[in-house]
This record gives sequence, structure tokens and C-alpha cells, in this order.
Amino acid sequence: MTVVRTIAALRAEVAAWRRRGETLALVPTMGALHEGHLALMREGLRRADRVVVSIFVNPTQFSPEEDLARYPRQEARDRDTLSKVGQCLLFAPTVAEMYPEGFSTRVSVAGVSEGLCGAFRPVHFCGVATVVTKLLLQTLPDVAVFGEKDYQQLQVIRRLVTDLDIPVRVVGVPTVREADGLALSSRNASLSAPERSRATALYQILQETSAAVTLGVAPNAAAAAAVDRLLAAGFTPLEYLEVRDAHTLAPLTGPLIRPARVLAAAWMGRTRLIDNVAIEPPGTSGS
Amino acid sequence: MTVVRTIAALRAEVAAWRRRGETLALVPTMGALHEGHLALMREGLRRADRVVVSIFVNPTQFSPEEDLARYPRQEARDRDTLSKVGQCLLFAPTVAEMYPEGFSTRVSVAGVSEGLCGAFRPVHFCGVATVVTKLLLQTLPDVAVFGEKDYQQLQVIRRLVTDLDIPVRVVGVPTVREADGLALSSRNASLSAPERSRATALYQILQETSAAVTLGVAPNAAAAAAVDRLLAAGFTPLEYLEVRDAHTLAPLTGPLIRPARVLAAAWMGRTRLIDNVAIEPPGTSGS
Repeated sequence: MTVVRTIAALRAEVAAWRRRGETLALVPTMGALHEGHLALMREGLRRADRVVVSIFVNPTQFSPEEDLARYPRQEARDRDTLSKVGQCLLFAPTVAEMYPEGFSTRVSVAGVSEGLCGAFRPVHFCGVATVVTKLLLQTLPDVAVFGEKDYQQLQVIRRLVTDLDIPVRVVGVPTVREADGLALSSRNASLSAPERSRATALYQILQETSAAVTLGVAPNAAAAAAVDRLLAAGFTPLEYLEVRDAHTLAPLTGPLIRPARVLAAAWMGRTRLIDNVAIEPPGTSGS
Repeated sequence: MTVVRTIAALRAEVAAWRRRGETLALVPTMGALHEGHLALMREGLRRADRVVVSIFVNPTQFSPEEDLARYPRQEARDRDTLSKVGQCLLFAPTVAEMYPEGFSTRVSVAGVSEGLCGAFRPVHFCGVATVVTKLLLQTLPDVAVFGEKDYQQLQVIRRLVTDLDIPVRVVGVPTVREADGLALSSRNASLSAPERSRATALYQILQETSAAVTLGVAPNAAAAAAVDRLLAAGFTPLEYLEVRDAHTLAPLTGPLIRPARVLAAAWMGRTRLIDNVAIEPPGTSGS
């Protein structure tokens, strides 16, 4: 596997592919790769001749009290993992390469960044928006692939790509789950055995909330019931569980007539878990 | 002259040039074109096979009390003016094309945007940074040409292009002036005859301040003397006259060892004028 660590080296590789008329997919990651990331890479391989996987633990999307220093870094193992799936170029820049001295530009997205995770991680989405803009403009891929697990992040990226006219197609890939439904996450490894057992309730409750709303239960009532069940299942603190418009992430007002999403973030012991499930408007499913 | 009004039409023209291996310069303007803009277009024609001139009066860089509604719009005359200089593609999008419903992304640049004009026009540079990012990503030119008359704007654009890894070379073009030194500006037309006569003092004072600093006068002392002279010449209110680092626009601390710039913004009657002049450090000129 070829590994490049500078923007200049990345661009030289991409330029060589472009001269041969090849297409290109970018899969941005923070490393600590698991099957969820590999699903993104497989999607990239299906959609383009070449795949660039980036591994960069972006400091600007962590707030000072968050776990930047403890975020797992295991590039050698990640390279092995990627090589089992197929060919890709690994772009693994340093912090100094991404943010040299004097760096002072920020990309921020109003609306879709607000509330949900944005309310609990105030600098997070500005950091994500800025680094993803940089990665997209460094690589200029045809397609960029992101997971639906970080659903609000995906909508933030869709918004900034549209708004800034970045010439790339953003593709979202459904969340990869364990057999019992728990969404794959590098943070799952820090759950104790009893916590891991209880954690499965998150996806179950989100699924059942989605089904209830599609059957006609008012979103607010369904969400309130789900909050009670999550707390009873041992998720504390519960940061949020909300039903939102699937595209704008705006709070719902009135009856559900467009696709929605139920999203939650909650702590199981010392581990923060997030997940989300699609909701079809009443009368549109089961056909 | 070909005129396109949509991003899709612009991209189709650019793609056809790229297939033929042609290079491309972008000259962003707000219209009301004068010789200063034509110097930018000529620079574009020297540096690339094709030139795109954009005309877009960007509402997001005007604050509510500013002159957005009164800003001159004269596209037919501008087309005539451009056609006398050479071939270009005119990109003249509508506000709805640039900012469709739901638009919510902002590009902001700390440091170089602060102080000087940024202190008096708080939303201005965020609006400039966002629209220039869009224009660059819509066009993806090899070269983008801007005037040094808006020197702080030029430095903001250099900074965001570097920080966001936009693959374009930014070129600054020296200010075009009337015979008596007044910098060309579409706003000069609103000066009365006596105001126009007095306005020439702005460039004279900036030049003399630059010369004094290069000869060894302390920047703060030279600036204070220049403020007195501008006020005496009838510039009121005087927004600022400052000597700054030419690259970062940081206030100077200690002796001048790198290129600097003296910049001013001041009102002559009801017209806001800005100008700036380079300062070489003492001992580097006259060789």
C-alpha cells in the first residue's frame, strides 16, 4: 500500500491517475478502522477506479475536555486492515501539514450543525466542516464516502459541499452493526461486558420509535417514551433523543410528511454512544 | 462575448476548455468596471489562455446600513468595456443562483480580517471570503486575479486559499490611479468637484508616510503625523490610518524588518475612500 503524508505527494498521485482518465473516491477517517470503515472503502471501490483513504485525527473537532489524547492511533494495524479489502492510497498527514503556522480559516455551517450533537460539542462541527473541506480540496475526488452512523456530520458535509460548490458527489453508507444491532464504533471497545450487554437497547429503542412514528404516533410522544426507556435501560446521562427532518435536521412541527430521522446520543458508563434510524412518513412504508 | 448565468453553464464552458488543455484565469468583480478592473483582466489574459470575469454584487459583504441597493449595476456598459480589452467569458449569476434557499455555510478568516476595514465593516470579510471561495470552486481556475487597492481583502483571500488548500495561484495587481494619484474606484464618481480635488491628498500622504518609515521614522510616529495631515486635508471621519505587516497585517511591534504596508480608510464628504502603499524596511530601498 502506498502511504503519502504530504498534500503535494497526494496531489502528484491523483494527477497521475487523472492523466490516465481514472475516477477517484475519497474515504475520510480518523483511523482505528473497523468494519464500518471498510464498508465505506468498499463503496468507494464500487464507485471509482481509485480510492484514497485518509487517516487524520483532527484536533480542531475535539474540545479541550474531550478525548483527543486518548483517541486510538494504530496506523500499522489500519494498513493491514485496509490491505485485506483492496487497493487504496493511504493519506496520513501530520497536524503540521494540515494546520501550518498562521492557519486561521474556518468553515462553519449554521442550521444543520445546531442542536443534537452540536449542542453538546460546540466546536465539533466547525472542526469537521473545516477539515473535510480541506481534504476534499486537497484530493478533488469524484465521490466522497461517509457513514450514516454520524448522521448529523453527514448532513453538515452535504450542506457545505452544496453551499461552497465543491465539485464532488457525497455518498452516505448505512451503519454497520453487530449481530445484536449495536452500531460499530471504536468506542465500543471501552464498554465493560455488562455495559456492552445493555448497550444493545439503544438501537432497539430507536427502531421501535421509528416504527411507532410511521404507524402514526406523534413524534414528540414517541420520543418522550423512548427517553424513558433509554434511561430505564441504564443510559445516563442521556444527551438527546429527538425526531428531526431527515434532510435539514430541523425540529418537526406538525404532522410527518417527509422522511425523518430519530437520533440519540447517550452515555453507557464512561462511553458516549450515538446512533440513528430512518423514519418514513405514515402511509409510505410496507408497500 | 459569451455570458453565462448559472454555475452549470460556467462549468460546461470551463470543461470544454480543459479538454483542450487550456489554462484559465478568474477575475472576480462587482461590476461598474473601470480601468482598475481592466488591468486585472489584462493580467489574466497574460497568465492564461482563457479569462472568466465574474460580475456579482455580493449582498453578504454589505451590512444592513451599507450601500447595497445603491451599488451601481450596469452590465450592458460593463460588457462593452470588457469587449474592448479582449476575449473573456462573463459569469453574471443571480443572487438566487449563488445563495439558493437553505444556504447556510460561512467561510471566516481570523487574524488578517481583524482591524482596519474589518473593525468598521464587521460582516464584510466573512461575506467576501465565502463568495470568493464559491467563485473559485465554481470555476477552478489556474490563476485568480485581485487588485491591491483592496489590500486587506487580497490578504484575506491569500490566507483562505492557503488554509483551505484551494488549488489556485492568487495574483495581486498594483492599484491603477488617476494622473494625480487618486486610486480608481467606482465610488469616486460621487465626489463633488472640490471633494475630488482634496481627495488627491490621500495618496500623497500615504506615499510620504511610506517614505518616512523607510528613512527610519518610527511607524507609529509617522502614522500619527499622517492622521493629522489627513484630518487637515478634510478627510472626516477618518476610520483608520495604520502601518501593518504587509503579509499578516499584524500591528507592528518593534523596528521594521519585513515589508510593511500603510493603509487608510477615510470619508471625503459622503464618500468612503480607501488606499494603501507598500513600505520597504529601512536600508532596503534606493539600491
